[in-house]
Amino acid sequence: MLSVNEQALDIFNDIFEYPEDYNVAAHELDNGARIVDAGVSVAGGYQAGRVFTEICLGGLADVNFTMGQIKGIPMPFIEVSTDYPSIACLGAQKAGWTVKVGNYFAMGSGPARALSLKPKHTYEVIDYQDECESAVICLESDHLPNGEVMQSVADACKVDVANTCAIVAPTSSITGSIQVAGRCVETAVYKLNELGFDTRKIIAGMGTAPIPPVRGPKLAMGVTNDATIYHGQITLTMDAPEITEYLEKIPSNKSQGYGKPFNEIFKEAGYDFYKIDTSLFSPAEVIINELSKGVVYHVGEVNPDVTLQSFGLQ
Amino acid sequence: MLSVNEQALDIFNDIFEYPEDYNVAAHELDNGARIVDAGVSVAGGYQAGRVFTEICLGGLADVNFTMGQIKGIPMPFIEVSTDYPSIACLGAQKAGWTVKVGNYFAMGSGPARALSLKPKHTYEVIDYQDECESAVICLESDHLPNGEVMQSVADACKVDVANTCAIVAPTSSITGSIQVAGRCVETAVYKLNELGFDTRKIIAGMGTAPIPPVRGPKLAMGVTNDATIYHGQITLTMDAPEITEYLEKIPSNKSQGYGKPFNEIFKEAGYDFYKIDTSLFSPAEVIINELSKGVVYHVGEVNPDVTLQSFGLQ
Amino acid sequence: MLSVNEQALDIFNDIFEYPEDYNVAAHELDNGARIVDAGVSVAGGYQAGRVFTEICLGGLADVNFTMGQIKGIPMPFIEVSTDYPSIACLGAQKAGWTVKVGNYFAMGSGPARALSLKPKHTYEVIDYQDECESAVICLESDHLPNGEVMQSVADACKVDVANTCAIVAPTSSITGSIQVAGRCVETAVYKLNELGFDTRKIIAGMGTAPIPPVRGPKLAMGVTNDATIYHGQITLTMDAPEITEYLEKIPSNKSQGYGKPFNEIFKEAGYDFYKIDTSLFSPAEVIINELSKGVVYHVGEVNPDVTLQSFGLQ
Repeated sequence: MLSVNEQALDIFNDIFEYPEDYNVAAHELDNGARIVDAGVSVAGGYQAGRVFTEICLGGLADVNFTMGQIKGIPMPFIEVSTDYPSIACLGAQKAGWTVKVGNYFAMGSGPARALSLKPKHTYEVIDYQDECESAVICLESDHLPNGEVMQSVADACKVDVANTCAIVAPTSSITGSIQVAGRCVETAVYKLNELGFDTRKIIAGMGTAPIPPVRGPKLAMGVTNDATIYHGQITLTMDAPEITEYLEKIPSNKSQGYGKPFNEIFKEAGYDFYKIDTSLFSPAEVIINELSKGVVYHVGEVNPDVTLQSFGLQ
Repeated sequence: MLSVNEQALDIFNDIFEYPEDYNVAAHELDNGARIVDAGVSVAGGYQAGRVFTEICLGGLADVNFTMGQIKGIPMPFIEVSTDYPSIACLGAQKAGWTVKVGNYFAMGSGPARALSLKPKHTYEVIDYQDECESAVICLESDHLPNGEVMQSVADACKVDVANTCAIVAPTSSITGSIQVAGRCVETAVYKLNELGFDTRKIIAGMGTAPIPPVRGPKLAMGVTNDATIYHGQITLTMDAPEITEYLEKIPSNKSQGYGKPFNEIFKEAGYDFYKIDTSLFSPAEVIINELSKGVVYHVGEVNPDVTLQSFGLQ
Repeated sequence: MLSVNEQALDIFNDIFEYPEDYNVAAHELDNGARIVDAGVSVAGGYQAGRVFTEICLGGLADVNFTMGQIKGIPMPFIEVSTDYPSIACLGAQKAGWTVKVGNYFAMGSGPARALSLKPKHTYEVIDYQDECESAVICLESDHLPNGEVMQSVADACKVDVANTCAIVAPTSSITGSIQVAGRCVETAVYKLNELGFDTRKIIAGMGTAPIPPVRGPKLAMGVTNDATIYHGQITLTMDAPEITEYLEKIPSNKSQGYGKPFNEIFKEAGYDFYKIDTSLFSPAEVIINELSKGVVYHVGEVNPDVTLQSFGLQ
């Protein structure tokens, strides 16, 4: 079985060894944990964003950038393709680990989760868990983790702390914008999993989303999510005729609140996350090629107006 | 002179050594022949499709994927660029070798043809043949070749059977869809060669076609060909003022039967391949930059409606 | 500090060692200088164009091709992204060195400039200069440099002539078309620098421009510049609220003469370069993400009609 941590470690080792090439900073903590700062005290950029995304997907995806357009306005887009959708997206990329140690807080994602099995249920349904002596974690945070935080990661992953690696970037940074947009395929796979669909039946996935501008800590979560909610386009290939039962529930446009930038919805909900219809966290448009019947389904649609509004361009 | 087999062997060795990274299976036969199953008993995927295409082009092309749109519907596209159009496309990629041994049947393509010289006429007009101790063949087939088949390949290529390599995928598979779409540039070069044009005068080519959905063995040939016939876009750079005599005959839209999905044309021809106007196997749209005059020609056009109809999306 | 010559040398060494892979020719002069002919006596092509561009940017950028469209007409585009805009674009790519030795003339660009400090003012404002024992220069010229030319480059760079490397292509060649289009991001950074903006505040840049057809030595300069003037699209990320003072002056559409192919403007100016409004050398459309305020600015627009007219397609 492929090890997502081993695959990611190769990529991490390269950015750790040549941080200047990526406009990041590399730190080794006293306990041997290795940290790549990809946007906290450094600028980061396109290369750091690509590497963050590749590591987050357990090295099981191809990540590229291309210049696209939204209503004629030029915009960089990320493109992600993977031949291991359930392992790469749910087994690694999913932001399923809330790392909270002392005052430190970060959304944890990436291959280390496949060792700590956070959350355990995910690994049961995708029938995957990693065995590896190294743990590579991705942290969405405004702060770098200290030795205590990394020790806690090591403990949860049952590896030596000297074999833990973290790449860190705030949501509100170029790296952060890229890595969240890089979750476009994951959003579709995640949604299907939440709906009870067996995502192991998805053979391949490719997706794209605009890389949202950096609009500051207050707006960052909304703006980065809007990139996929209102402009994520995903194609999935699967062997699963039962997909017809899930089709209509996949795209974002059927959820409550759809049609406004996330930050407006959040404001109207009194900034209470639990009042928001979670089905909003879905891709805008999905094409599914179902192999057993040889058919193609098309659901949802992009919403360029709300996307541009969210991005501050309209 | 560049060896297409040597270039392809480097790529083959990597996928053979790390089959899991590509979602394929690697087999070594008793006689030492090496087989990569990229879609027969395995799922294959984007990476396998890319590698199949790169090998098929003798390692002399760049192959990428990008998300495009057909009438606003998101669709993955393949993009191929080569600085050796006649050698890569006609000397390697062209499906010019019908491999038929006992009950085994496959359309053979790829660099091995430049050793077996199949068909010989092609290699005379492009003035190329390879010298290499290894032979790398691409097989479009629902079955893997056995030792006898590979011995026959070895004999035709005059190499030791232990030095033969095959990558195999059915037409009706993700890998198959990708590698046929990956013939977009070849279709233009092939057509020009068929028209009697000296393709050695083509300096560079770049092309794109949508990656067709997998619609099952019955429809696969038609659907994969439609991707290029109705939506292939190619640019060629050449030093050949005589191209003006060929221009109008290049694109598909001048052939009989044009305007319907291939499978309908095939049906109307009573499933008799020889009743179909072969000039249909052409790219939809071609841009030619002719250097001696410094001019640009533009012929043909894409047909999004027939493309979507063929893909089951309209 | 990153060395643009060291980064470029890695890329140069590869193309020098495997010239056939890139359809170029490699020459070692008697004094040890190494020359890659990427379009003078050879055809060059996409790969040579990509490598020329990567070297020219000091190895600090990602360079890709994609098939795009202008008014529905298929056209290859170059895409450039960099996390070191001021060093890569002004410290290396800018054509700031007129190499004139005896009868030899070439526009010099690339990392060697960061050793010879040509022009010195540029390196003062971007606060960068390279230290490296090798010098890698890019020459836009119809002729290859001889030993004397390379000795002069060595002297200016204060390196041993045996450690000088040059990659050469005429403006009117595929490689030339690609490398000029590859200056799309540079045009934006250059313009901002000319306007007095501190380009060190630009954190990342991504841009695209169509790869213009090769139209012959007389038209080449105009056609290649039109690709960016009328169809270059660039996004810049920066931490500089003062950008608002520069915004309107960035795009080409505010300059005198805008609206006709460059070759027509040049003709009307009596082929007197000094009569042309230099502010024309600007990108068509620019998106700026300013981080301190979290805002996005959008100036300029593409002009598909003039672009196609310049390319000989309308």
